Amino acid sequence: MRLSTMFVPTRKEDPAEAEVVSHQLLVRGGFIRMLARGIYDFLPLGWRSVRKIEQIVREEMDRAGAQEVHLPAVQPAELWQESGRWTHYGAELLRFRDRKGAEFCFGPTHEEVVTDMIRGDVKSYKQLPLNVYQIQTKFRDETRPRFGLMRGREFIMKDAYSFDVDEEGALQSYDVMFEAYHRIFKRLGLEYRAVEADTGNIGGSRSHEFQVLAETGEDEIVSCTECGYAANVEKAEIRLEVAEAGEPSGSELATLRTPKARTIEEVSAYLKRPAQLIVKTLVYMADEKALIVLTRGDHQVNELKLKAYLNGELGRDVQELRMASDAEVEALTKAPVGFAGPVGVEGVEIIADLAVEPMVDFIVGANLKDKHHVNVNHGRDFEVSAFVDLRQAGAGDICGRCGGTLEAHRGIEVGHVFFLGDKYSKAMNANVLDENGEHRPMQMGCYGIGVTRILAAVIEQNHDDDGIIFPMAVAPYQVVICPLHLKNELVVSEAERIYNELQAAGVEVILDDRDLRAGNKFKDADLIGIPVRLTLGGRGVENGEAELKMRHQSENEMVPLSEVVDRIKALIEDARGER
Amino acid sequence: MRLSTMFVPTRKEDPAEAEVVSHQLLVRGGFIRMLARGIYDFLPLGWRSVRKIEQIVREEMDRAGAQEVHLPAVQPAELWQESGRWTHYGAELLRFRDRKGAEFCFGPTHEEVVTDMIRGDVKSYKQLPLNVYQIQTKFRDETRPRFGLMRGREFIMKDAYSFDVDEEGALQSYDVMFEAYHRIFKRLGLEYRAVEADTGNIGGSRSHEFQVLAETGEDEIVSCTECGYAANVEKAEIRLEVAEAGEPSGSELATLRTPKARTIEEVSAYLKRPAQLIVKTLVYMADEKALIVLTRGDHQVNELKLKAYLNGELGRDVQELRMASDAEVEALTKAPVGFAGPVGVEGVEIIADLAVEPMVDFIVGANLKDKHHVNVNHGRDFEVSAFVDLRQAGAGDICGRCGGTLEAHRGIEVGHVFFLGDKYSKAMNANVLDENGEHRPMQMGCYGIGVTRILAAVIEQNHDDDGIIFPMAVAPYQVVICPLHLKNELVVSEAERIYNELQAAGVEVILDDRDLRAGNKFKDADLIGIPVRLTLGGRGVENGEAELKMRHQSENEMVPLSEVVDRIKALIEDARGER
Repeated sequence: MRLSTMFVPTRKEDPAEAEVVSHQLLVRGGFIRMLARGIYDFLPLGWRSVRKIEQIVREEMDRAGAQEVHLPAVQPAELWQESGRWTHYGAELLRFRDRKGAEFCFGPTHEEVVTDMIRGDVKSYKQLPLNVYQIQTKFRDETRPRFGLMRGREFIMKDAYSFDVDEEGALQSYDVMFEAYHRIFKRLGLEYRAVEADTGNIGGSRSHEFQVLAETGEDEIVSCTECGYAANVEKAEIRLEVAEAGEPSGSELATLRTPKARTIEEVSAYLKRPAQLIVKTLVYMADEKALIVLTRGDHQVNELKLKAYLNGELGRDVQELRMASDAEVEALTKAPVGFAGPVGVEGVEIIADLAVEPMVDFIVGANLKDKHHVNVNHGRDFEVSAFVDLRQAGAGDICGRCGGTLEAHRGIEVGHVFFLGDKYSKAMNANVLDENGEHRPMQMGCYGIGVTRILAAVIEQNHDDDGIIFPMAVAPYQVVICPLHLKNELVVSEAERIYNELQAAGVEVILDDRDLRAGNKFKDADLIGIPVRLTLGGRGVENGEAELKMRHQSENEMVPLSEVVDRIKALIEDARGER
Repeated sequence: MRLSTMFVPTRKEDPAEAEVVSHQLLVRGGFIRMLARGIYDFLPLGWRSVRKIEQIVREEMDRAGAQEVHLPAVQPAELWQESGRWTHYGAELLRFRDRKGAEFCFGPTHEEVVTDMIRGDVKSYKQLPLNVYQIQTKFRDETRPRFGLMRGREFIMKDAYSFDVDEEGALQSYDVMFEAYHRIFKRLGLEYRAVEADTGNIGGSRSHEFQVLAETGEDEIVSCTECGYAANVEKAEIRLEVAEAGEPSGSELATLRTPKARTIEEVSAYLKRPAQLIVKTLVYMADEKALIVLTRGDHQVNELKLKAYLNGELGRDVQELRMASDAEVEALTKAPVGFAGPVGVEGVEIIADLAVEPMVDFIVGANLKDKHHVNVNHGRDFEVSAFVDLRQAGAGDICGRCGGTLEAHRGIEVGHVFFLGDKYSKAMNANVLDENGEHRPMQMGCYGIGVTRILAAVIEQNHDDDGIIFPMAVAPYQVVICPLHLKNELVVSEAERIYNELQAAGVEVILDDRDLRAGNKFKDADLIGIPVRLTLGGRGVENGEAELKMRHQSENEMVPLSEVVDRIKALIEDARGER
């Protein structure tokens, strides 16, 4: 297409609200515009890239035997009441009433609707296995939408659902999807890891996340350098090596001034003691009831383990577990945030990670502004109601599988495969007759891919100071032709000839026919990340040459005008071969 | 694909709620399932056909120079407040609040959002013209969703919006879309009319509907047998020929028994007087205030003319004009519905169509059960506050353009093109600098196509007693292969060979590998409307032949097995040529 007629409103300035590079470049490159918090318009270039991602996903779903369907965005409350999620899903579920007062939601996911569809027509094991998928707009009313397309409220997802008569079949369906996901993310040109993941609110018992590695990722993952084991830190199995209990020195508890030292790093630096000798005090709200959790200063709390302990071993039914707000911490400890500690706090349960148990003569916040206690010992200075494993995996921890060492990465979750078992089929009476004539709930799996989020992830991994560096598979156009001297008839006629020949060959090509300087044309071409740039200058064309430059390489090359079209076709063919 | 693995749940019974054939066949053929009133799941076959329609629309939009974008379904109230439609749109607009209490709606159309997008980045006439389009899910909270996909609440629409610096440019953009629409509906194989239409609530001043002709259509259209003028009856211009005033006979008003005669036809038959001598009494509610409208018995009221009269000549600001409910009519007339009349009704304004003015000694309802008045005269027996043109065009009326005769059709509106002028750009300050450096609001057009409704319209026009007869362009698959004797190895191996060769040639083919009788396979193939059926029987295959049958023809033909693949490829190529 001719750039002069295209709606590609590039901008020079980063948008004020954009914290990550993909958000900045998507706005500056004219790919997206914000309509409301977490809700974006896709402009022509952005939408072309989304459709390319969709098409790769679709081809691999079809190849894996999944059948495309399209389910409604507006879903009746009744189905969510059947599954029990109408009450459990929380405020992320956008609910409303229609003109007759009936309750509905904007689907954030489709387990209920798809189970309802299948139960209506599938009655026998002979109709199974089935795997249906859709590529469709979802809405999750996030508290803090951010990072542009990485955590939006309205987004496009591919969601697939498998139905089998038994667990063995369901796990085979799972494996087929697992392999299809690998093909998809390879074709997209992404560096990613498939990691074991927690099964969270959706339920079920086997689950992998597909994480694109990027510093800006919101997820923390670890992988073992020895055995390749990879998992979300929430789920990662680590070998706990608890030290032997120390012997308290017998020194009295003392209170030291620690002005402005709030974090473990600041306290450690100020008191010149390692983080391993400090106990970190965290205040959580479990369904609005405060709870103090202690860990060693260099450790992190795994909230899933904490919740599992509360609801499992303690037999509670905590729905919402969250960090206390600053105000709640201050109300509890009567001190500014950063100085909380377990000594002298009344009426609050205190639990501690196993690694705290052997610690003696340690340091804690004093519940006084700019003060910490030292020579603290549990049992003497305060009571811990239970020591349990609450630790989250991190770099340097010992791999729970092989004893190797874990390394940490940040990841953007772009895909998720789940074995659901009979969670939904049982609740919703989605039964089939098996070979023995017995009714049994179908075994389900669900498989998501964040289509619009992938666009952000591609850019997080593929950019430089000048802009986006699209892999060929996701680029909105493959080639941009920049004729530099629009008054030179030969330049224009050669540019037009090449443009027409490439289009006729099915190449997606932009002709930058704007009357601008070379620098401005190159800036835009680099910003929007077109993989191949062909520049026609006056002198070059008179010598029978044009300049060919790949966006991901710094060198360029002069190519005879007669060979340009074939060279470009070959470049695109090569990229296709990289599948 | 192998039918044994496909999710194509055909049914033998029509669904109870389905009133029209497309709804019946879409459900029986396993194309759609109802999730809630006016909200449907698309199953694999249904979705394939929708995607084919989408693709034809997309190709023609691209060819016409429109650029594809994707705008959010969830739209902030602020934009609708800017345009004024937040208050005017009524209960069809599905409104809700997000978790922070901000007001949003589920977009039924995107004038506001697209105008907001364009005004943010387009500041000069040099960036114009622009035409952007999307294919996207909409929601209109219809009072009475019905007829399956023909009047759903959630549906897929293609909506395009053009932006020009002046009216001349905007009308050119309109014409380009008008031509593109003709190409689209021709490629879809539909019999349709482009008719002049009212500009309704969207505003603007030039408008055409694309109506698929079908008896079940909800729209009434007229076309002139002479000059080809075609219009929606609401908009159609007719030549009014008002009779000369008659001379009242002087007879007294009398009351006759007309048991159970409620409609004009019934009264006419019972009293043996033509409908032209009866005056029809209609009760409307104009913003909840009752209003009586009189027309000649054989005429219809055009509600748009009525509303235009109330808001124009009478200077009122009526937002909602509707027929009174039965209860409201009975409260006003103190009589059952069907016997309303203008005589003796108090406190209600009475207006009448021009054709009532010359009538004398006519018949009206008596406001008494099973009674009508005869020898009625306005001026003597009741007062009419105004005689105005309220008549709707119908068959036999005189063409307002050429004096020819109009014929009536029913139509399904599948497309609509609108010249909007500056209605939205002015309200929303979407201005550009023109060539003279003056700020001026852009001139807009909007262009809709009901993608999912087209699927219903295709079926309304293309079916027989056995099921759907898909045009090749919209068929979910082009070919179905029916091997009849699955124990005959030659039948199976030839079926597999042909299946593989057709797939390799890019033909969309179903292999009916189910172990069913010929009759059952044929029933399903006919029901789902696959254009080409190839049957392999034991004897035929041993003779080196297979039976080729087109769904739209009753004859079939034996074709040598060696020629089958080429013949089918040629058939599909021919259909493609029909574009």
